[in-house]
Amino acid sequence: MRHTEIEALECSVARSWSVLGERWTMLVLRECFNRTRRFEDFQSHLGIARNVLTDRLGTLVAEGILERRQYQERPPRYEYRLTEKGLELYPVLVAIMTWGDRWKSKEQPPVRLVHKLCNHDADPKFVCGHCGEELAAREVRAEPGPGLSSAAA
Amino acid sequence: MRHTEIEALECSVARSWSVLGERWTMLVLRECFNRTRRFEDFQSHLGIARNVLTDRLGTLVAEGILERRQYQERPPRYEYRLTEKGLELYPVLVAIMTWGDRWKSKEQPPVRLVHKLCNHDADPKFVCGHCGEELAAREVRAEPGPGLSSAAA
Repeated sequence: MRHTEIEALECSVARSWSVLGERWTMLVLRECFNRTRRFEDFQSHLGIARNVLTDRLGTLVAEGILERRQYQERPPRYEYRLTEKGLELYPVLVAIMTWGDRWKSKEQPPVRLVHKLCNHDADPKFVCGHCGEELAAREVRAEPGPGLSSAAA
Repeated sequence: MRHTEIEALECSVARSWSVLGERWTMLVLRECFNRTRRFEDFQSHLGIARNVLTDRLGTLVAEGILERRQYQERPPRYEYRLTEKGLELYPVLVAIMTWGDRWKSKEQPPVRLVHKLCNHDADPKFVCGHCGEELAAREVRAEPGPGLSSAAA
């Protein structure tokens, strides 16, 4: 059985993409991982239209990816911070950046990721959690998982 | 220095997202990784409007992520296959799926990935290429990379 036989609503890619797959969303998240928290800062860093930014932040808050906290009373001002659910999007961001470094940069990567624990370039690798070997598409097989409804199987 | 101080065009996330960050794109790629190759099959598996599908496939071909090959002469028929550039998007797809399994599935994951080399659940992880430890957002620091232009630094 292939993913293709699974209804869209039973696919974790489809479910995730319904939240992530819009213009600007990943760049708003990039900002969050770089500790941008305030509307005005998102706006000036990204040069994004204010109504689009309001929409993207609202979606991410509604999804529980960002938390909106008041940091000032008069006038009321809010900041946006990644929740645990949001922090766990880090591999998605790094995977996109790594691919972009390799395929969308004309020269060397514009940003270097340093792993604080070992103090070397992180040089992120995507590996099998069981054997530790790097995962390539051709070496992975998709099978029906335990959460697949019988209707879709 | 943070990513935020880098102009959008010098960011590998921004460059990648300009290609990937649209509705349907990741689901079209999911289909490709599941060996869907023909327009009619993409269309029926995804239930996507034909003009949108034509647009997404066209973008992916123009970007060199998919290759369009004629497989029949009369009438002319084409199929779409991942190039090396496309195959290297696998970590992006799996990172999105893994996050969705954890945060967007009500119960157990609908799909199981098996690593053919070790024959166990792939349980994909992003690790530091230097020390092999799993990478978490809080343990990684972004610094200017070698490809950052002096104008943006």
